[in-house]
Parts: sequence; structure tokens; C-alpha cells
Amino acid sequence: MSGSTFGQLLCVTNFGESHGPAIGCVVDGCPPGLPLSEADLQPDLDRRKPATSRHVTQRRESDRVEILSGVYQGVTTGTPIALLIRNEDARSGDYAELTATFRPGHADYTYWRKYGIRDPRGGGRASARLTAPMVAAGAIARKWLGLAFGTRIRGHLQQLGELDVPFESWEMVNANPLFAASLDCVPQLEAKLDALRRGGDSCGAVVRVVASDVPVGLGNPLYDKLDARIAYAMMGINAVKGVEIGSGFASAAQLGSTHGDELTPDEFVSNHAGGVLGGISTGQDIEVRLVLKPTSSIRLPRRSVDLSYRAVTVSTQGRHDPCVGIRATPIAEAMLALVLMDQALLHRAQNADVRHELAPLPASAGEPGSDA
Amino acid sequence: MSGSTFGQLLCVTNFGESHGPAIGCVVDGCPPGLPLSEADLQPDLDRRKPATSRHVTQRRESDRVEILSGVYQGVTTGTPIALLIRNEDARSGDYAELTATFRPGHADYTYWRKYGIRDPRGGGRASARLTAPMVAAGAIARKWLGLAFGTRIRGHLQQLGELDVPFESWEMVNANPLFAASLDCVPQLEAKLDALRRGGDSCGAVVRVVASDVPVGLGNPLYDKLDARIAYAMMGINAVKGVEIGSGFASAAQLGSTHGDELTPDEFVSNHAGGVLGGISTGQDIEVRLVLKPTSSIRLPRRSVDLSYRAVTVSTQGRHDPCVGIRATPIAEAMLALVLMDQALLHRAQNADVRHELAPLPASAGEPGSDA
Amino acid sequence: MSGSTFGQLLCVTNFGESHGPAIGCVVDGCPPGLPLSEADLQPDLDRRKPATSRHVTQRRESDRVEILSGVYQGVTTGTPIALLIRNEDARSGDYAELTATFRPGHADYTYWRKYGIRDPRGGGRASARLTAPMVAAGAIARKWLGLAFGTRIRGHLQQLGELDVPFESWEMVNANPLFAASLDCVPQLEAKLDALRRGGDSCGAVVRVVASDVPVGLGNPLYDKLDARIAYAMMGINAVKGVEIGSGFASAAQLGSTHGDELTPDEFVSNHAGGVLGGISTGQDIEVRLVLKPTSSIRLPRRSVDLSYRAVTVSTQGRHDPCVGIRATPIAEAMLALVLMDQALLHRAQNADVRHELAPLPASAGEPGSDA
Amino acid sequence: MSGSTFGQLLCVTNFGESHGPAIGCVVDGCPPGLPLSEADLQPDLDRRKPATSRHVTQRRESDRVEILSGVYQGVTTGTPIALLIRNEDARSGDYAELTATFRPGHADYTYWRKYGIRDPRGGGRASARLTAPMVAAGAIARKWLGLAFGTRIRGHLQQLGELDVPFESWEMVNANPLFAASLDCVPQLEAKLDALRRGGDSCGAVVRVVASDVPVGLGNPLYDKLDARIAYAMMGINAVKGVEIGSGFASAAQLGSTHGDELTPDEFVSNHAGGVLGGISTGQDIEVRLVLKPTSSIRLPRRSVDLSYRAVTVSTQGRHDPCVGIRATPIAEAMLALVLMDQALLHRAQNADVRHELAPLPASAGEPGSDA
Repeated sequence: MSGSTFGQLLCVTNFGESHGPAIGCVVDGCPPGLPLSEADLQPDLDRRKPATSRHVTQRRESDRVEILSGVYQGVTTGTPIALLIRNEDARSGDYAELTATFRPGHADYTYWRKYGIRDPRGGGRASARLTAPMVAAGAIARKWLGLAFGTRIRGHLQQLGELDVPFESWEMVNANPLFAASLDCVPQLEAKLDALRRGGDSCGAVVRVVASDVPVGLGNPLYDKLDARIAYAMMGINAVKGVEIGSGFASAAQLGSTHGDELTPDEFVSNHAGGVLGGISTGQDIEVRLVLKPTSSIRLPRRSVDLSYRAVTVSTQGRHDPCVGIRATPIAEAMLALVLMDQALLHRAQNADVRHELAPLPASAGEPGSDA
Repeated sequence: MSGSTFGQLLCVTNFGESHGPAIGCVVDGCPPGLPLSEADLQPDLDRRKPATSRHVTQRRESDRVEILSGVYQGVTTGTPIALLIRNEDARSGDYAELTATFRPGHADYTYWRKYGIRDPRGGGRASARLTAPMVAAGAIARKWLGLAFGTRIRGHLQQLGELDVPFESWEMVNANPLFAASLDCVPQLEAKLDALRRGGDSCGAVVRVVASDVPVGLGNPLYDKLDARIAYAMMGINAVKGVEIGSGFASAAQLGSTHGDELTPDEFVSNHAGGVLGGISTGQDIEVRLVLKPTSSIRLPRRSVDLSYRAVTVSTQGRHDPCVGIRATPIAEAMLALVLMDQALLHRAQNADVRHELAPLPASAGEPGSDA
Repeated sequence: MSGSTFGQLLCVTNFGESHGPAIGCVVDGCPPGLPLSEADLQPDLDRRKPATSRHVTQRRESDRVEILSGVYQGVTTGTPIALLIRNEDARSGDYAELTATFRPGHADYTYWRKYGIRDPRGGGRASARLTAPMVAAGAIARKWLGLAFGTRIRGHLQQLGELDVPFESWEMVNANPLFAASLDCVPQLEAKLDALRRGGDSCGAVVRVVASDVPVGLGNPLYDKLDARIAYAMMGINAVKGVEIGSGFASAAQLGSTHGDELTPDEFVSNHAGGVLGGISTGQDIEVRLVLKPTSSIRLPRRSVDLSYRAVTVSTQGRHDPCVGIRATPIAEAMLALVLMDQALLHRAQNADVRHELAPLPASAGEPGSDA
Repeated sequence: MSGSTFGQLLCVTNFGESHGPAIGCVVDGCPPGLPLSEADLQPDLDRRKPATSRHVTQRRESDRVEILSGVYQGVTTGTPIALLIRNEDARSGDYAELTATFRPGHADYTYWRKYGIRDPRGGGRASARLTAPMVAAGAIARKWLGLAFGTRIRGHLQQLGELDVPFESWEMVNANPLFAASLDCVPQLEAKLDALRRGGDSCGAVVRVVASDVPVGLGNPLYDKLDARIAYAMMGINAVKGVEIGSGFASAAQLGSTHGDELTPDEFVSNHAGGVLGGISTGQDIEVRLVLKPTSSIRLPRRSVDLSYRAVTVSTQGRHDPCVGIRATPIAEAMLALVLMDQALLHRAQNADVRHELAPLPASAGEPGSDA
């Protein structure tokens, strides 16, 4: 029940601070026999890592991951897999001022109130840097899900500030530094980010993640629903303020006759449910949307107080993303992978013996991404 | 790690089916010494129970709760509190047809695929009836939070179908059967519900829940954030498809200079964060919004398949709410109460010794409900 | 993480007090499709229940169990199974004196110190009566294990006070009220119990439990070993003060060349390990021994204090077992069944895909019970 | 619910293999504000480490621990504390033969059956080397308990093979390499160990651990008792086959009038309970005894089989302890410290508000170690 452990059977225990000696995690519960090496983890880490474009923080980290345990002769053994990433570009500057004031929108105030002490270096434990170990762990889940079920998990930037980013194709997502699923709009997005950076401000974003070829039957009815686990995972990511499944908030204005996905002998006709009914996966695409608030660290001066509650003005210098949502795509993919693998293990624990007399309904033949 | 157990230190284990002999829960971990009787639980149960107006299911249940354990001479003893509610208006009709087809939007299909068997009577385990034990458990948490911190948890209907429901005052919420915080709009809402019922259709809704006078410091940084726990709790409620904290999805289009709540020596100036920063409560109001999809059980005929994947047409008769969101307000309040009490116990386990040299920042003096 | 919930995937949440309205439990995580009715649970409950002979408490309880949920048309559905047993012979006498003093050897003092309040009626929550729900839950596990693997779980009284009780055959165990595996010694044991009862004193006991035809591979290496889970389960039973696996404490004086069980192509040659190596089951019999302290409620006067720490003399009247170990056999069997089923579910969650090229080693051909 | 995570609120997630790059653990849930550095952890690690005398394995490991996170400016921050110990004397020899046969008494066979694969190098995950991270974690718990309550946790070797080791004084324990609480018997013990080593055999041992000045009220009644947690912790240590609390197995032959510890206004008169009544600590010394089986790795040839179940003879060469019980004392102390700190946090989560009108009963004035 460790607060830093994610998952129930596939358990990821995260540790580290932004400017401490290292960050990492322990992944426990992975089935044995999975071929695994650092090369499986590095590509996702590289997609998330800083300084990949001018639009994200310029901190220089190679984010090289070392597997310390749980793998023997290139194969998982079923024992805990410890992953270590050394911090390379940590700065040991003078944090006295940072410690003495609370940056608006930051966890400074709440950490201080909860713990009476905090590591102020680069945001300490609250830094988005701590998503790196989750991305590494997620790469394990992604590989296992792919081999076991053919599951694919993909995400893209759907909104940047007030700009909608259209979905054209999954192929485009990794062909630009913003995880946009359309290349045409990239110059406009980049212009927006450049302007924000120049102005010392930041903006929010919406990311969409889709899991395809998900086994049917994952999740529990009450209250540990699959969508509840997904919401928990996404809201746990730094800066996330909202999560939707399927039609999400648009469901409010829908009629039941519209929302309820009809079935034909061939498929579900639509996917307003987002792949989850009654807390259990339908086999359709899992459709998730999450919103990330604007980066709290901005150069523009703002009002705050110091530890004695005297008024101060705070302006955050240093290396920061003008939009934390930019790098959120691989993170959200990783969290979804972790949830799905965990639920797949839980499902077979209880239901491995379930046999149906008939073949399952084919999954929707709808284009991935066509119904969100 | 039971899928039917909610909470980490305040643990609620839910059981029962809609038309079985009884539903209920076991509440474990409640501190001893709390004065408690059935009279503390019944008011919230009565707010949620069916047949309180023509707009909700006409099933007749008194929802009388019996405390079976954990209370001695009117006071909790620290041992498990078992709560039992007998089903009184269960119907043992012919469910053969129901079992043989899958109602669109329902958990019929996913239960059948996960378990190979399901209790079809009134939705079985998937019925919203199973929220009653959570409401009873939530009443315990609400009482404890109130005595310990003065915390109040209140909710209201914010949107019905495409209609926005304005917030006028908390006092109005319990003065109408729809949990609207404005009385003027009730006739319009009722007309809408009447029309839906006549037409055999249903609609969705948005509910807002606010916790005031919440202690600062509740929650964990990564990934077990307070808002992640809240999202998990809300998304676990039947029919919920989305959850927001604070500015939620509107954060995407905000600037950092707008979103980040400034501080003055007297207060936070705004509450875009919704009372949570870095996963930890700020002491401001916790602001949560959740969306509920339209009721899946509608009279309008829809396409589906039977267990042999042959095409059928399904039309759901029987007693159903035209909008499950109507009764969701007391449920969402209960779930928020359970999360906050659980987190309050977790917080003092780790941080009971934390001492600050200075007094805490006063909570925002803003009107509750004025900034969401 | 509820303190009253036992198990990780097969979770039993226990509730109730000795003289409250009811006791019971919720069993969550049971696979669907298991044929189950009250008739499966009652035999084990009847073996444990009071007043089956003059050697145990004369409290009159039918211990009739009612299944409230989780079973539909005689088969488990995969949802929580709630079990309810009403207390029938609870006595509402004057407990004022009991509440004011601490009985030596009882939980009176520790409950009062931990909770500041306690239900004194018949021992309240600390009563051995609360083992009944575990026995009922264990009957579910026993049935599942039997159908899934042919596993049998059997126990017997091995020592009563200073008297050893020889093992002759399993058949004899249920043919006498003391769970002795030998009938010849029963008169001697009964004479001892009669003498204790007349003298107002009590004695301890040792119980042995053996699980046969256990699947190989159950358990985790560190530190959640199968034997650690078994020790936890047994030590959790009221009055248990020690647990051994296999050779247990006798291992200290053994040589490694004796203790280490050799293997031949046909079998393990011995079973000093008690069926567990490195925390994982070998497929041999699981051999467990547990010791129960003498009943604390005795008529002989003893020194104690009241709530003001003034010296008092305490003599416990009422209905009590002169040896709580007498009824411990079905309880220990139930707890072992719960552990093994839980571990079987955990094992297949992680290792369902494991394939060996070769057939497994046959289990030991040794007589069950021949090597402890 | 990770199998490699120990504890409920103070959670220790252990990772590593004997001959992998590193071993370690993540300690989550430690209260903030505890002064901590590597210097607090090293002394206990040094007591456990190999090659401290000729009686233990000659593997050369400095067991230097590095704190990777959770400590800032010499004080815990409340976030996860990651501890890393590099393996320095790992040998990459030819393990082909080891992998192909099963050493009697070892986990070789069960790992292979459970996982279908195993890391054979030096016992891999099953090596007693994996107790080092627990000893480091235990040192944190020990420090916190000492500062919070003055709790002391001490252990000693009580039996070596068939030889009893008398208790003379705690001071002597660290003055000899065998953790004997008497110096006079050390030559006899050393002679026994020398003979075993020459003969290529091994023996078992009994270790006693005592916690003094433990707060009253720790633990839960059913079934998550304090003694159940202790039994779980001790049985989780490599090679342990039995655990006793207080009078333990000797309780069987005791009378209730003897076993039940009487109280006077000044103290408990005896401590047959071993400091736990009804699953909750009494404030008296916690008295625990555990037995460790003889080392399984011996030079004497024994019968076994290979992966094709053909008969082979196995003789284990290499560096091994002739009695694993020798180094078990600091390990058992560490595990007891972890349990007690975890329970202390759990206790205050639920019961921080409990107030008694009267002062607690003074703890027994009996000499520590005088009543086991």
C-alpha cells in the first residue's frame, strides 16, 4: 500500500528526486520468460526525455536506463526488475530563495505543509522528471501486451492551448517533436510555443491515448472498474486535471439512444463507451483523453508569500517546458500500458478457467481513432 | 486488494446484487469513539433511494440499514462496521430473455465475457442499487470529517442533458428532487425528464461536488495523488465517463499566468487548482466535476445480438431512471467523503509529528462554489 | 489493506462480535462457475461449532450460514460472496464488572489501551466465535482446491496439555469430539479435560495440519513466502503462540545432510522441508504445526487490576472451552485452505504461461502424515 | 500487493540477485524529519556482512550502501528512500552444471517449476544475500522507533545445532562473531563449526529477538494480529522453519493458571504472552524465537536428479556458511523493527485520538531476557 507503488499485481515502485543522484523504479510481478533488455526501454525513454527540441526544457539528460535485477540471459525471471537512471545534469545552485517562497501553481506550498520539509532542487519529488521511470516500466508492459495479445497503445496531442490538433494518422505522431497526428499544423503549433516562451508564459494541452486489440473482460465491476483504474493512472501524472473515457463529458448532452453502442453480429456499431462497459473492457479500443494544466514555472512575475506569509513576487527562471503536455504522450501511453497489463494479470488470476461455448464477438472494425 | 474493497485505511467492502436477498458493506478502519447509529446513515440513504419522485425508478425500497457490528453503546469500537440493507422489492420474474441478449450500453456483454455467467436480475451486480452501501459508508466518513475538521461535502446537479443548471445556493439543493442548486429552473428540468420518459429515451448529466474546510496536506505526490484517488472514486460510480478537478478540461486553453493560483498573505487569490497541488490538498475547496452517461435501459428499440451472435432487437422495459445523474449527487458526495477520510488517516500515519514554526495560510475566503 | 481482510486475491473480510446481532464475512475474488450452496459450508461450521461435546463451551449456536450474494442458480458469479451467521445465544447480562477489570491472558487490557473502548460481551471481537466466518470461507477454498487440483486439507490434535496424541489414521479424526487421529487415547484425553474443568483450569494444545496434492510452484521467494503466509494465517488464529513448517524447531539440531530432502527420479526421499523450499511449494505435503495456549477464561482466581490500577481478584465464570485447541482443527484447516487458494490464484496470474519441456517430478509417494 | 514489498505503511520493496549488478530496496512511507545518513545503516550491515569470521562465507563484499533518494540535507523528506548496494565479489563462473541439477534443500527445484527459468548464480534471488537490504531498511526503523519511543530491539543466538547457548548479558552479543550472549561457550561453538566445515556438513540454529519499550496498542485483533505480522516477517527470512511468541510451543503443556500473565498495580507479573495479547502489544517485551534449518549448500555428496529426472549426485562447492543461523541475528532484529514501525504508523492512523483518563500500566520491571 506504498503511496509510491503503482499497480496491484504488476507493481511499479517509483523513487527519486529531480536533482538527487538517481531516479528509478522496481517493477515486480512481471511474468517470467519475457525477452527484455535496456534496448526495449530506451526508445520510449528517448521520446520522453528533455532537450529533444527547442519546445521542451533544455536540461541535458541521456536518460540511460540500467537494469539491475530480474533479467537473466536476456529474459525476465519473474523476480523484481530494478531500473536505474542516473541524474546527469542536476544543478547544485543556490536554492535558498526557492525554498523560502511558494511558486504559484506548484507543489511547494503543499509539500511544505504536508512534510514540513522539501527538496527544492528542480522541483524535487514533484518534478515531471519522475515520469521517466514510469515510461521505462510502461515499456515492459507494452512489450508484454504486444506479445500476449497484439495490443497496441498509441497517443497524440489533441489540443495545444486553444488550438485543436486534428488527427490525420498515427504515422505522423513520431515524425514531429510535438506528438501531433498531423504535420500540417506543426508550424502553427511551434509558432505558438515560441511566442509563449518569448513572453515567459505557458499553456495547457489535451492528449488522447488509444489502446487497440485489448482483451475483453479486463476490470472489475464495483468500484475497482477498469476506467476507474485508468482515471487514477492518468490523474496521477503531473499536471493532469481531468480524464475522460469514450464520449466523456460530451455524454451529458447525448441521448441514451445515441450513446448506447449497438451491436450487430459483426461488431459494435460505435464506441461511445470508449471500450469499457460496467467497468470491464469490451474488446473495442480503449479511448482516453486527459488534460494537462499550463506549466506552473513561468518567467512572468506573480504574487506569492514567503514562509512567514509576507508578500513577495515570484518569477521562475531556469529550464522549463512551456507546455508540459508536449511530453505527456509517451507518459500517458506508459500509464495505460501499466494499467492494462496489471488488469490482464488480475483477470486471469480469477477467470482463467472461464470457457464460453461460442466464439467472442469480433472487435469493432472501425478505424482506430475514428470515434472519440 | 479485493476488487470490491474501496480505500486503504478506511476500507469499504461492498457486496450484493440488485435482486439478491441483501446488499451491504463492511467498513473497516474507522477510529473508535465516534458516536454512531443507524440514524446517522439513514438521511443520506433516503436522499439516494428510489421512488422519491416521478423522475427516478419507481422500485419501492425503504433502504433501511442495520448496523451489525463495530458499534457498542452508540459508539464505534474501532472494529469492522457491517451494514446490511435487505432488498424488499426484488422481482423474480422471467429473466430468460434478458440473459440471452445484450442490452446496448449495459454491462451484460462484458460480464458474460469476463465471468461466463451473470446474475441478470435487475442488472445484478452492475445495478446502481449497489451505490446504496457506499452512501451509507460515506455517511460515516462525512460525520467523522465534520467532527474532526469541520469539513462539509456538498454536491449539486450542474447539467442535465444539454441544459446548464445554474448555481444559486446550497440551500436549494435539498429543496427539490433533482439536486439542482437553483429552484427556478426545476420546472424546465422536470419537463425535459417527463418528455424523455414519455419518449422512452434518457439523457446524461454533470454533477459538481465540493468539499470545504478540508485539512491541508492530504494525498501523496506520485502517483497516488489525492486527485488521482478522487478520480478513481468518481469514475468507479456507475455510468461515470469523466472527471475533472478545478479548472479541468478548461485548463488546456488557459495561460500559466492565469491558471496558477497566486497567494497573498491572506489567501489564495483563486482556485483553478481545485484544492489540490502536486497531489496534495491546499486547504482550499476541493472542486470536482463528473459526467454520467445517459441511462442505458431505455424503451426505444435498439439493435443487439444474442448469445449466438444472431441479430435481435432489444427494448428495455421495467423501472428505470430516465437520467441516472439525478441520484448521483449523494453518491458522489459519499465517495468524496470516503476518499478524504481515508487520506486523512493516511496523512496522520506518516505525518503526525510534522510541526511548522508558523501558522498555516488561511484558506481562501472566497465563497464556496464561486470558482469552478 | 483492511486489518480485517485476509488474503490478497481471495479476500475474506471478517466482521462481528461474539454477542452482537451477527457475525460473518465477505469473500471476494472467488472464480466464477464454482457450484456452491450453504450445504457446502455447513459441515465445516458444524465441526467447529460450540456445544458438540461436554469438552467445549455449552453456548447454543446453530451457526447456520446464509449466503447473501455472489451465487446465482447455485453457482458462483465471480462477485463478492457475503456470508451471514446470526448470533442466537448471545447473553445481555451485566458486563459492568467485566468492563472494569482486565482478565489475565485476555485481550481486555490491550483493547482498552488501543481503542479506549471495548465491547465486553463474551469477549466481543476477541472471541474465538469470530473463527466461524473463516471456517465458512475456508470451505469455499477447500471445495475449489479439491475440484481444481484434488488438494485435500486435513488436521488433527497432536498434543493435549503434556499428552502426546499419536497419529493412527485420518479416518479416526472425525470419529471423536477431540479431533484425535487415534481412538484409543480418547478416554485418557477426556479424563484430562474433565479434571481440568472440575478444577477450574485449562491447558494448551498442538494441532497438526497437512495439505496433500498441492500444486507445485505456489508462493513467492522474498519475503512473501508461502510458509510466511501460512505462519501469518496460523498465528492469526486466536490463542496461537507458535507455528512450524516441516521439521520446524527440530531443524536446529539436524545436520544439513539429514535435513536437505534428497531427490530420486521417482520422488523426494523425505519431507523435512514440509513441502516448501525457498518459499515455494514443492508439491509434497504441506506440513504445519501450531500451538494454542491454554484458555484464558478460567474459574481459578487470579490477580489483576481495575481501570484505576487498583488490585482486584478475577475469576471468570460462564461458558468456556477448557482447551481452545480442541476446536482449532477445522479452523486451522480453513486458514490453510484460504492461503493455498489465494496463492494458487496469485501463481497463475504471474505464471500461467510457464511451460516446461519435461513432466514434473512425481510427488512423494510417502504416506501422508508419515514424516513430520 | 507486490510480493517483494514488505509492510503496509512502511513499505520495503526488495530487489536483486546474489550475483547481479546490485541489490537494494526502496523504503516508502517513512515519516519526514528523521535525521538519516549512510552512517546510520552501515553498522547493522556490517554486523550481517560476509567474511567477518572464519565461520561464515568468505565472499568479500563491503556491503556499502548508497542512499539514492528521500533524504535532503541529512533529513528524510517523507518520499521514498532508495538504497543501493553494488555486488562486488560476484563470480561469473560456469553455472551450467548448477542449472542442470537440483541441490537438495535448495530452491532450485521450486524456482524452476514456478518460473520455468532461474538465475543460478550464487543462488540468484534465493540467496541469503538478499537479507542485506532488509537489514539496511531495518536500521531506519530501528532509529525511528528509538527516537519515538525509546524502543530497543536486540537478538542473540540461543541454540547452535544441539547446543544450547545460555543468556548472560546483551553486552556480550556483539563481542563475539556468533552473536552468543555468553562468551564462555564461544570456544565450544567455534569448535563445533570448525568440525562441521571440515566434514562438509552444516547445522541449524535458534535465534531469539526481544523488543523492549514497545508502545502498547500495536496490532489488530483479527486476523492481522501483531504476532501474525511478526510470524510472517520471521518466516519470510531465508531458512526459517518455525516461529514462537512468548512461551510458544511450551504453552501446550502449561495450565491456564500458569500461562495467563497476572497483573498487579505495578506491573505484569510474568510474560508468557511474549508481549502480545489478542493480537495487540501489551507494552511488555516482545519475545520472539525463530529456528533456521541447516545450510543446504554442503560438500557432502547427496542424491538428486537433473532436468530430465535422471539420477545424479550433487556436492556443493564454493563459499557457504556452515550455519546460516550465525548471521541471522541482525536480520531478525531488522525484520522485527520493520514490523513494529509499520504497526506504530498504522496504530496512530486509526487511534491517534484515543485518550484514556488514567495513565497506562507501567511496563514489566522484569529483566529483559528473564522470561522466555
